[in-house]
Amino acid sequence: MKTDIEIAQEAELVHIREVAKKLDITEDELDFYGKYKAKFSDELWDKVKDKKDGKLILVTAINPTPAGEGKTTTTVGLGEAFGRMNKKAVIALREPSLGPCFGIKGGAAGGGYAQVVPMEDLNLHFTGDFHAITSANNLLAAMMDNHIQQGNELEIDPNQIVWKRCVDMNDRVLRNIVVGLGRKVDGIVREDHFIITVASEIMAILCLAENMKDLKERLGKIIVAYSYTGEPITAKQLNAVGAMGALLKDAIKPNLIQTLEHTPAIVHGGPFANIAHGCNSVRATKTALKLADYVVTEAGFGADLGAEKFMDIKCRMAGLKPDAVVLVATVRALKYNGGVPKIELGTENLEALKKGIVNLEKHIENVQKFGVPCVVTLNRFVTDSDAELAFVKEFCEARNCDFALSEVWEKGSEGGIALAEKVISTLENKESHFKPLYDSSLSVKEKIETVAKEIYGASGVTYDAAADKAIARIEELGYGDMPVCMAKNQYSLSDDPAKLGRPENFTIHIREAYVSAGAGFVVAITGTVMTMPGLPKKPAAFGIDVNDDGVITGLF
Amino acid sequence: MKTDIEIAQEAELVHIREVAKKLDITEDELDFYGKYKAKFSDELWDKVKDKKDGKLILVTAINPTPAGEGKTTTTVGLGEAFGRMNKKAVIALREPSLGPCFGIKGGAAGGGYAQVVPMEDLNLHFTGDFHAITSANNLLAAMMDNHIQQGNELEIDPNQIVWKRCVDMNDRVLRNIVVGLGRKVDGIVREDHFIITVASEIMAILCLAENMKDLKERLGKIIVAYSYTGEPITAKQLNAVGAMGALLKDAIKPNLIQTLEHTPAIVHGGPFANIAHGCNSVRATKTALKLADYVVTEAGFGADLGAEKFMDIKCRMAGLKPDAVVLVATVRALKYNGGVPKIELGTENLEALKKGIVNLEKHIENVQKFGVPCVVTLNRFVTDSDAELAFVKEFCEARNCDFALSEVWEKGSEGGIALAEKVISTLENKESHFKPLYDSSLSVKEKIETVAKEIYGASGVTYDAAADKAIARIEELGYGDMPVCMAKNQYSLSDDPAKLGRPENFTIHIREAYVSAGAGFVVAITGTVMTMPGLPKKPAAFGIDVNDDGVITGLF
Repeated sequence: MKTDIEIAQEAELVHIREVAKKLDITEDELDFYGKYKAKFSDELWDKVKDKKDGKLILVTAINPTPAGEGKTTTTVGLGEAFGRMNKKAVIALREPSLGPCFGIKGGAAGGGYAQVVPMEDLNLHFTGDFHAITSANNLLAAMMDNHIQQGNELEIDPNQIVWKRCVDMNDRVLRNIVVGLGRKVDGIVREDHFIITVASEIMAILCLAENMKDLKERLGKIIVAYSYTGEPITAKQLNAVGAMGALLKDAIKPNLIQTLEHTPAIVHGGPFANIAHGCNSVRATKTALKLADYVVTEAGFGADLGAEKFMDIKCRMAGLKPDAVVLVATVRALKYNGGVPKIELGTENLEALKKGIVNLEKHIENVQKFGVPCVVTLNRFVTDSDAELAFVKEFCEARNCDFALSEVWEKGSEGGIALAEKVISTLENKESHFKPLYDSSLSVKEKIETVAKEIYGASGVTYDAAADKAIARIEELGYGDMPVCMAKNQYSLSDDPAKLGRPENFTIHIREAYVSAGAGFVVAITGTVMTMPGLPKKPAAFGIDVNDDGVITGLF
Repeated sequence: MKTDIEIAQEAELVHIREVAKKLDITEDELDFYGKYKAKFSDELWDKVKDKKDGKLILVTAINPTPAGEGKTTTTVGLGEAFGRMNKKAVIALREPSLGPCFGIKGGAAGGGYAQVVPMEDLNLHFTGDFHAITSANNLLAAMMDNHIQQGNELEIDPNQIVWKRCVDMNDRVLRNIVVGLGRKVDGIVREDHFIITVASEIMAILCLAENMKDLKERLGKIIVAYSYTGEPITAKQLNAVGAMGALLKDAIKPNLIQTLEHTPAIVHGGPFANIAHGCNSVRATKTALKLADYVVTEAGFGADLGAEKFMDIKCRMAGLKPDAVVLVATVRALKYNGGVPKIELGTENLEALKKGIVNLEKHIENVQKFGVPCVVTLNRFVTDSDAELAFVKEFCEARNCDFALSEVWEKGSEGGIALAEKVISTLENKESHFKPLYDSSLSVKEKIETVAKEIYGASGVTYDAAADKAIARIEELGYGDMPVCMAKNQYSLSDDPAKLGRPENFTIHIREAYVSAGAGFVVAITGTVMTMPGLPKKPAAFGIDVNDDGVITGLF
């Protein structure tokens, strides 16, 4: 069987100007980055901004399992299927993080015959957006430490610094460090931490900013530290906003690439789906809606995290209205939720499927709570039995969800026609009555509790004393009316990754809370969140190579 | 008076495809990065590699002073002047480092009416080359620490780690840090250091590599640490070469931009001119020689460091033969060398000029030691008196150097015609008999002593015990036949920055030595070398801004 990169490299790409033409974009409205990548110029937005919006389709999934769901693959394949049906469609994805390409996870460009290309470029530096974010993040850190070094006029308390440096690399030894050792000119000694670039608040800001003005306003609000008297110290007070904005001037422009079948894909932004909202950029989504009749986008992790944040954070802030949700599952993953070990997932097991499908059931209910019509799709595996597929279909239809199989991994667009047809019929026959789950004027705890009870199915929420105190301070400082961004493990609806299916009678425990004032949300952390991954014993980097002609192998 | 960025932004740039046309480069042989930047494809080299080489002209300078010399400005202006004279010319420059743009130094794109543009892009992320180098550098560091974490099969001694992480930012608190704090999964605790990206050995490697094959071979030779038994541990042993090469696949391609007058400028690579050789890439220079009749390039700092390394490292390794050297000075800087304080440099002072011109005299002699004809130019200031200018002219001509004034800062190409004419007449009338200063088969100490005596004018060399030991180990390990890369302050011919003019009766003291096995040279350090700058009290970042339309101000 061919690997993803082999399939990708065999594809005949067309020049990106040809892909852009499908969206009526002229060469003048593009900045090329090589022959197969481009950024949208500011002029493009000005040209299209008054057009009617297309339909916004969110692809999300059940809770992820080791069996794999194929959310990005389905997103790409669905877009390709629209293309095959001569519909004007565009895909709006997140940019993958560089670090994990060298670790366990590999890249993120879809899979099989439903990929975006050039996958090497996308997975490596792409158009430099993440490097720009890294630079802006680290400039702010350097300016903060330099402020302290040069007299500390703002009275920054070195024990209350919250801004961290970042690097787009899986590098565990940078999680906890001490900086400023050496002589007096080498800075003040303090504890510090590196996070991976996708976890930087600047990444979330870039993805939520409407334009440069909004971006700069948000950058200015970033809280880097607190003073000795407990006042927040912002990036604006450090005079860092203009220089950070200058570093991000190209990064805020959405990027265009293509699928294996030359369907346009806008790939822009990729905030950490945990301590941030995990969606592609607002600017990309809004532009996409002006350019096409169907916009297929995705959000991080399962629907409990990704779709909830898409609706409650991204759509709320940007005034977006999703028209339909595609919920991706696999028979294998549902059986895994039903207690079947990974090794036995290839055998028919209706009992386990019935037991595990409650996970899908809860996600269907959740999507419906937002008032958005839902289509369920099974990413088909050869080992799925007809009885299993029929069972899932019936289960979904009984819950007012259209259902379709997806075979895009194997067949590309052809394997997505059935799904695309169901999506179109849903769009035509069911109206979206989208509303966010909660009113943002509720108290922080009320908001957390609404998500925990309504979406996760928890019976209640408990708080660490530290979290209690943090939430009180957040409200005191005037940030209480921001939406909450829940950081929870992705594997379970609960905060215990071992509880599969549809857990009941559990409480959610909030360990920590803080405000991302520039992004505009309050982060509530359950359990521990790792913001800097490590490399495994045999990192993927071992297998990556480039030949004398610049052709890359081993990237996945 | 207009600032450099104002002049740059007022310029009407032509599409980079038009600039490329002047060098007979077709659109297919370029990868665009926006409308005004492009990378050369591999096909271009294949097409031109058998053509006859043009003339290679190195622009260097006297020892830098606070009065300023204008080496890059002269390089750009000379290239523009060739263009104005309808000569086929190309400029080959180094890429500026991002970090210093936000500190004191600002960018590096020339000045006045002799600039390369777009200067904002060049000074900020440009085409991402430095970000790729940062990533490759830090991937290697992460893989090394991960190797130790995962069992340390190679028995790396954590106290003998020589590979440092890097960031393209002036960030003093990262000079000396402790990494790996926290739990067992957070790595082993050890002292570590960040350097600025331009100081990474990978930067030097990228600039010396002929092609991807050579690049990978060099990467593989990088010594990251020593084992408990003193064996060098290389990047190859860590299985990091393929992944690092993949990260650098686009970075090794030279970049094309234009001057204010649309003369082609190849801007590629920018190794630290101190612990590395400080020249633009071999690949860029070689390609430039195939594309044009006149290639104007520059090297870091004054001729004692920059030109010496250009000749003894870059030209030796790459088989290049410089045809002429342009030595840049200013009347102000020569008077400064003669002991005049900065504030009085605007007043005629022939005595001081006579006293200070010995600095220029020594550099002329040095250039002649390499067998390359030399043209001296004075970057003219309005305060220079006719008598002063005449004195310098006569002084140079008496030493068999052609002489011309340069007024390119104020007048662009027009101000460089006189210089270009002298350069052409030198090329036509004086043959280059280029040879490196020393035979690389000499012992390390013999090589160091040759440079110290012949170029700096030292009476001898002394060594720290640690340097003695290091040199012995370098030779023992088989690296003794590499050229030496001297790290010395740039302000004086001696290792004492306060000794201006042409110091005599001094010794050079070598404090430390190590091998950059991938780059292929032995670094000999005199004094201290700062490989991570800091920000000043009022960083340049304070003044940088970007407006709502993405237009940047305050960059210089």
